[in-house]
Amino acid sequence: MRKRKNNMEEDSVICAIATSPGMGAIAVIRVSGEESVELCDSIFFSPSGKRLVDALPNTVLFGQIREGEELIDEVLATVFRSPRSFTGEDSVEISCHGSVYIQQRILQALIHAGARMARPGEYTRRAFLNGKMDLTQAEAVADLVASSSAAAHRMAMNQMRGGFSSELTKLREELLRLVALLELELDFSEEDVEFADRGELKEIALRIDGWLTRLCDSFSLGNVIKNGVPVAIVGNTNVGKSTLLNALLREERAIVSDVAGTTRDTIEETLNLQGVIFRFVDTAGIRNTSDQVETIGIERTFSKIGQAKIVLLLVDATKCVEDIIPYYGQVRESLAAGARLVVLLNKVDGVADEGALLKQVAAVLPGETVMPLSAKYGKNVSELERFLVDIVQADLQEADDVVVSNVRHYEALFAAREAIRRSLEGLVSGLSGEFVAQDIRECIHYLGEITGAITNDAILGFVFEHFCIGK
Amino acid sequence: MRKRKNNMEEDSVICAIATSPGMGAIAVIRVSGEESVELCDSIFFSPSGKRLVDALPNTVLFGQIREGEELIDEVLATVFRSPRSFTGEDSVEISCHGSVYIQQRILQALIHAGARMARPGEYTRRAFLNGKMDLTQAEAVADLVASSSAAAHRMAMNQMRGGFSSELTKLREELLRLVALLELELDFSEEDVEFADRGELKEIALRIDGWLTRLCDSFSLGNVIKNGVPVAIVGNTNVGKSTLLNALLREERAIVSDVAGTTRDTIEETLNLQGVIFRFVDTAGIRNTSDQVETIGIERTFSKIGQAKIVLLLVDATKCVEDIIPYYGQVRESLAAGARLVVLLNKVDGVADEGALLKQVAAVLPGETVMPLSAKYGKNVSELERFLVDIVQADLQEADDVVVSNVRHYEALFAAREAIRRSLEGLVSGLSGEFVAQDIRECIHYLGEITGAITNDAILGFVFEHFCIGK
Repeated sequence: MRKRKNNMEEDSVICAIATSPGMGAIAVIRVSGEESVELCDSIFFSPSGKRLVDALPNTVLFGQIREGEELIDEVLATVFRSPRSFTGEDSVEISCHGSVYIQQRILQALIHAGARMARPGEYTRRAFLNGKMDLTQAEAVADLVASSSAAAHRMAMNQMRGGFSSELTKLREELLRLVALLELELDFSEEDVEFADRGELKEIALRIDGWLTRLCDSFSLGNVIKNGVPVAIVGNTNVGKSTLLNALLREERAIVSDVAGTTRDTIEETLNLQGVIFRFVDTAGIRNTSDQVETIGIERTFSKIGQAKIVLLLVDATKCVEDIIPYYGQVRESLAAGARLVVLLNKVDGVADEGALLKQVAAVLPGETVMPLSAKYGKNVSELERFLVDIVQADLQEADDVVVSNVRHYEALFAAREAIRRSLEGLVSGLSGEFVAQDIRECIHYLGEITGAITNDAILGFVFEHFCIGK
Repeated sequence: MRKRKNNMEEDSVICAIATSPGMGAIAVIRVSGEESVELCDSIFFSPSGKRLVDALPNTVLFGQIREGEELIDEVLATVFRSPRSFTGEDSVEISCHGSVYIQQRILQALIHAGARMARPGEYTRRAFLNGKMDLTQAEAVADLVASSSAAAHRMAMNQMRGGFSSELTKLREELLRLVALLELELDFSEEDVEFADRGELKEIALRIDGWLTRLCDSFSLGNVIKNGVPVAIVGNTNVGKSTLLNALLREERAIVSDVAGTTRDTIEETLNLQGVIFRFVDTAGIRNTSDQVETIGIERTFSKIGQAKIVLLLVDATKCVEDIIPYYGQVRESLAAGARLVVLLNKVDGVADEGALLKQVAAVLPGETVMPLSAKYGKNVSELERFLVDIVQADLQEADDVVVSNVRHYEALFAAREAIRRSLEGLVSGLSGEFVAQDIRECIHYLGEITGAITNDAILGFVFEHFCIGK
């Protein structure tokens, strides 16, 4: 297990409240660092006289936290010994009564005893520096804590358990082997030998390119899982868009209100459908005449369509079929790559012959997914819901186990792919091993940045500054 | 250790989130009940294969919470065995990653495995029913968690540690002995004997009356400690009331903002001064003429003065002294019993001869506490602060160690005192032992209600319904 120390700061004992801020029945304060057990021992008093420094690791001890003569609280304290702790250092977890006052008094007592407040993400940062996890796993801890849907939770859990980084590490080792062979050639450059088989090299570089491409492509899905699937609802103002939204919301109201920290703005509704977060974007504005399409509002609508993963084109089934045509073409053209279009024939309750209508529409819009709907009477609303979930689930199943959801990873993977492609070009054009090796080295570097095999304070700062204190 | 069971419900395994609601680095879920360890064991999987049912008590085990094949989280679980747990029952504490999603999924998994959600205060209720604490201590747990100042914290801690109930128990035992003697007489009523020495009885009843009176009197202080010391600021609109409030707030801003759940309304400012909560009530409205005193606003001001423990009469030191007189008398008359009046000569920075002014005022208001002040330039602001704290501290030191802060206790103590006084009257007027015994029995009953020695579902309901879930 590697153990790095950048400066004195990394040695100090840190403390923070690890549980959600505010009042609860209990709260947990984490103390970590080389002298943390001794430090806590100086303010902890067990009725049996047993001391924390003598306590068995991973064993809960009952006692009092005192400052001077004053009893602050009766607590449970658990000692964890290096390396068997979250940070890999000696640590103490203090479980106290959950008043804000007590939490603060215990922190004060710890600080008076020589600890300092932990900075955001410092526990996880130490866990990383002590080799308890790599950088992607550290980032997954933050994602896990922030995840508010089943899919985001599964993705973060998979990443935390190292699913992503084990593949990266394998890949990197393969590249390191190749570059070593290439560099060996340089030592014998006078003799014009080739230790690295160019055929094998090309094959591996191609394989890596393919793998990186799959990972880069998974980012759009990963991003969608983490931040919600953008669904644009398109249609005239009186086709029943808000009725549809309300119908979806009504069924899932309980789940929606449970999701903490859901971001909303005036035109977005976020919904958790069967464990997947959907962000419904209302895009009022399209008129059924072509001469008004140039207004700014309409442009914005088409830009939203371009950003959506799923576009629901809502039409009034009681109107004549031809009314759909004028803007159907424009919507189709505006779709992003890989986005899905669904045409919803709303108000089918007002249509005499549904089957005939469906045939008619199918004739006008061949190959499109068309679904009859009555948002008002709830007809096919849960079918639509299942359909939306299925679209995402299909993507999830198609995707590798590993889905990239982190912008930092995406950027590094993208740069790694650029580098491996340059090395491929070099190989194809018969460039000398020196230049090929340089590109492969660059690729290795970017892959190392992801797991933290290669790191610096700027990367660590970027990773951990978004953590909250206590994590 | 007594163990009572009211119904099947008391046997079931309960679960709840014990930490503050919302997202944190970690969260703690408490599971308690006879089968709690087996229940948790069914969803907990340690990598070493070690099972919770085989775990040493008070020892932390690392493992996964799974539901079916799905990994919900990696957690730490601690088993507590009866009677060495908070509730006195077998219990498990699960420390999980603090996302709201994970917290809910683990609760769901527990419920699917056979647990049910705990009702408000149910953990503490079980601790009481299993003899881990009496009712006053259970109530102190709630007070402790809610306490937001040093004084409230100290009072709750003292009560939780049994300072209050041990005295009550002693007292009750003494009464039980006396009443037994009185009732023995009844068995020999034909023979006209007196087992209970009437002199000793009177003495003890008087002592108890005195003790109960002290406790009842301490309620106003206890209430003040728990809910804040009401301070009315009285004075004309331009004498500097808001400047004074701001000056006080500025010094203590950090502490004030730290106090969670502080209740405010438009006319109150709550301030934590050296560990005591003060509720400053602004009472604009008194005019320096007597003909306007009859308006409703002014009546309200005087009603606020009547409710205050401390009244700060703020006057403009640059105006002529006589301006104070018209409403000084009315303020004095409106004071509650035991309330303190302080006359603050504000804007002394604008006065040429401060000493002369003080003499003048002292002559006009003999015996009053008068203090020069410059709220604007901060002169004497911290002295005023210290003065306010000293008033409360003096009360605290004068009071017994035991301060009653709970309305339920106050009402029972009051009723107990009524009963003991009736028994005293009976003794003085030579009433037969039968009637005296009845009054003493009543007194014993009320004392028993406080600690929970005598209880019923209504009392328990009242006590625990105000707890939050997880406590």
